Amino acid sequence: MLTPNPSFSVALELQIPNQPGMLARVIQAIASVQGNLGTIDLLNQTSQYTLRRVVVNASSETHGQEIMAAVAAVPEIRVLKSVDRTFDLHEGGKITVVAKQDIHSGADLAMAYTPGVGRVSMAIARDPEAVYRYTMKGHTVGIVTDGSAVLGLGNIGPEAALPVMEGKAMLFKKFADIDAFPLCLATQDVDEIVETVVRLAPGFGGFNLEDISAPRCFEIERKLKERLAMPIFHDDQHGTAIVVLAALVNALRWVNKSLDQVKIVLNGAGAAGIAIMQLLQLAGATQMIACDSKGIVSLARTDLTPEKQRFAVSESGSLAEAMVGADVFIGVSVAGAVSVDMVKSMAKDGIVFALANPIPEIQPELARDHVAIMATGRSDYPNQINNVLAFPGVFRGALQSRATAITPAMCLAAAQAIASLVSPDDLSPEMIIPSVFHPQVATVVAAAVAEQVLK
Amino acid sequence: MLTPNPSFSVALELQIPNQPGMLARVIQAIASVQGNLGTIDLLNQTSQYTLRRVVVNASSETHGQEIMAAVAAVPEIRVLKSVDRTFDLHEGGKITVVAKQDIHSGADLAMAYTPGVGRVSMAIARDPEAVYRYTMKGHTVGIVTDGSAVLGLGNIGPEAALPVMEGKAMLFKKFADIDAFPLCLATQDVDEIVETVVRLAPGFGGFNLEDISAPRCFEIERKLKERLAMPIFHDDQHGTAIVVLAALVNALRWVNKSLDQVKIVLNGAGAAGIAIMQLLQLAGATQMIACDSKGIVSLARTDLTPEKQRFAVSESGSLAEAMVGADVFIGVSVAGAVSVDMVKSMAKDGIVFALANPIPEIQPELARDHVAIMATGRSDYPNQINNVLAFPGVFRGALQSRATAITPAMCLAAAQAIASLVSPDDLSPEMIIPSVFHPQVATVVAAAVAEQVLK
Repeated sequence: MLTPNPSFSVALELQIPNQPGMLARVIQAIASVQGNLGTIDLLNQTSQYTLRRVVVNASSETHGQEIMAAVAAVPEIRVLKSVDRTFDLHEGGKITVVAKQDIHSGADLAMAYTPGVGRVSMAIARDPEAVYRYTMKGHTVGIVTDGSAVLGLGNIGPEAALPVMEGKAMLFKKFADIDAFPLCLATQDVDEIVETVVRLAPGFGGFNLEDISAPRCFEIERKLKERLAMPIFHDDQHGTAIVVLAALVNALRWVNKSLDQVKIVLNGAGAAGIAIMQLLQLAGATQMIACDSKGIVSLARTDLTPEKQRFAVSESGSLAEAMVGADVFIGVSVAGAVSVDMVKSMAKDGIVFALANPIPEIQPELARDHVAIMATGRSDYPNQINNVLAFPGVFRGALQSRATAITPAMCLAAAQAIASLVSPDDLSPEMIIPSVFHPQVATVVAAAVAEQVLK
Repeated sequence: MLTPNPSFSVALELQIPNQPGMLARVIQAIASVQGNLGTIDLLNQTSQYTLRRVVVNASSETHGQEIMAAVAAVPEIRVLKSVDRTFDLHEGGKITVVAKQDIHSGADLAMAYTPGVGRVSMAIARDPEAVYRYTMKGHTVGIVTDGSAVLGLGNIGPEAALPVMEGKAMLFKKFADIDAFPLCLATQDVDEIVETVVRLAPGFGGFNLEDISAPRCFEIERKLKERLAMPIFHDDQHGTAIVVLAALVNALRWVNKSLDQVKIVLNGAGAAGIAIMQLLQLAGATQMIACDSKGIVSLARTDLTPEKQRFAVSESGSLAEAMVGADVFIGVSVAGAVSVDMVKSMAKDGIVFALANPIPEIQPELARDHVAIMATGRSDYPNQINNVLAFPGVFRGALQSRATAITPAMCLAAAQAIASLVSPDDLSPEMIIPSVFHPQVATVVAAAVAEQVLK
């Protein structure tokens, strides 16, 4: 069972008699079913009652309902409203399209719409570059998915992917002031996806590919890069690669090892895994062993995709065998793939990035005594390796500089920029990567990316 | 030359010495070049200077520059800034995509994005209908164009069409609180457009087709209606038809004639013209003569498209011949297509809708003495017949009621709803249709449309 967390949290609106000890009863009821108490708001107070809103983290949907039931059973307490906060927040969707200026009058209409807008259209028809100045194009990104690999949930389709893409659009806005819009496609055919995105290109400054399964994602990205002279970025690949490299740069700094001399084992040779290895190689890594569900990605195997073949090694064997003496383990695979014994078999001052979501390859509690540095993708442990650190700044830098592509060199620069935000004084085993809320991340990443474009 | 209007207006920021008569000099300079003075703001005042922002309507871009030059030439006045207001308003585009809730904390992230969002995605995967509840889909409309017939500017392409589509999105938001997003396509092939829209459908509640040239627009709309069980609406056709019928209902009420007994001549048998005739027919019109650039759309002609053939009549001849004795003229054609003599040849209490934009088939000044009612598409004359009266409410009603199509009956209901907003007391030759800023238009239209859906 997961620890209680906000994603399963419930909010209760309670009418509580104004008598000593009543709120304590509510808190006790919540504690009795292992609810994790969050904010307690005072909404209103009369001589007889107080009206409170109580937020409680739960560990599952069932647990949330248990908490609601436990509170409802407290005598004299009236539950006026109880909601699952995650679903409540999603009612009616999470993003909206708004005008930058209001339209008050006929004069406003005549400028923003006909006939005035026709002058702007003609200016763009005469000078196609003007589209970047007089329209939304230059700061607008399409978030493209086919719903084939949504989070860890699999092929659940484009409609079910929409909440994730809306969330992504929120992050683009929050962290980089980019206008991003979900494009959830009702096709999983590579060429149809490519054609569709190419046809949509006039209205967008770039495209972020999202939650498209491997190996189709590689081909889609490659073909789009050939067809469109604008930023194309598959976040599951390159966003992940950038934050992993950023964290690794700082982790190695802490243990005083060099990227070109460490032995790296990566488990999960999918979209993210392949991209991580490509970027680590570009950054100078020389000894990398990839593993998938069948063990080491070995030259002896005959079942490898072209992408895996590029990273095949002469050794054969299991993940456990690969990990013996490894300096770095990077997991982008599944919960529980790594045992304590495997971690113990690593070299001195080992580094473990267990990034499977929501449950890591090995729980930090089990691994941390045996390694120098432990990181996950979770927000409730130290060292959260999260793509949000990368993609907003990468796109902002690329759009600002009118990049015609996002190159590996730009990804490298982004990773180094993220790593640089942890100062030597702050660097510690529990602080190898900045928080996603670090106020400078997107700016610093954007500057590094834009500088790379100018080169 | 057009009269000075906001679409060519300029704004000047002026530093004016604090002496009597100085502002008068500025105003005089503007008047000397026929500038039409708008708002004069006081931005700041010191003992020596006042800082003012002066808005002046112009009749062309050159005229705007003449005004700027005339003001700059006034002694002792410093022009700190002068801008073309329409272009100024378009800097960086007109719409933006924003989050409905802010993301402050890790808990917000965990609910709006991973891992919480996964719960919502799974809810939609289990129950596809839930996409309307937990995402933006239900209130989101794609504005689809290929840039082939943008305003009256012709085939200027998808990039040049983008400012118009952004303007349309502003109107959707302003008048119906609908989130609309431009989809400017880099193809003008009917089947490619249809395929692209079908693939985009998972993320949208409906599609508004815009500025797509005839006859391709008919085929695109027909095919999309066959493929998608959601509102599909070609505004240039049906939006125009709805507002024309609304205006005509009230105009006929004023002259006390009945739709099934009047002779109607329509000039311009393109997308809008065909749709107008279809809707008028449904509303009860029986005597309609369509004309195009070659004269009456006659059964004797061999050059007719299938759409025109449906409305071909036994008579042949010119537009002038068709108009003799007509009760109603509807122009959706080109500036100057109608002469004073043609108007004089119409039946008593004639009705003229000269909707060519920006310059009507005949100037109201020339026609109004010879007819009972004169209307145009312009905001600077009475009786502006503007699609903004129709499309926001039509989509709102259709989306609210989860309509699987927009039917002719819904268009008819929308037209009657718009007409009903002019009360018998208000009805006059200069008031046959409500203002686009009438606060109830979208609500009343939406209710009428939704009622039709429930039937």
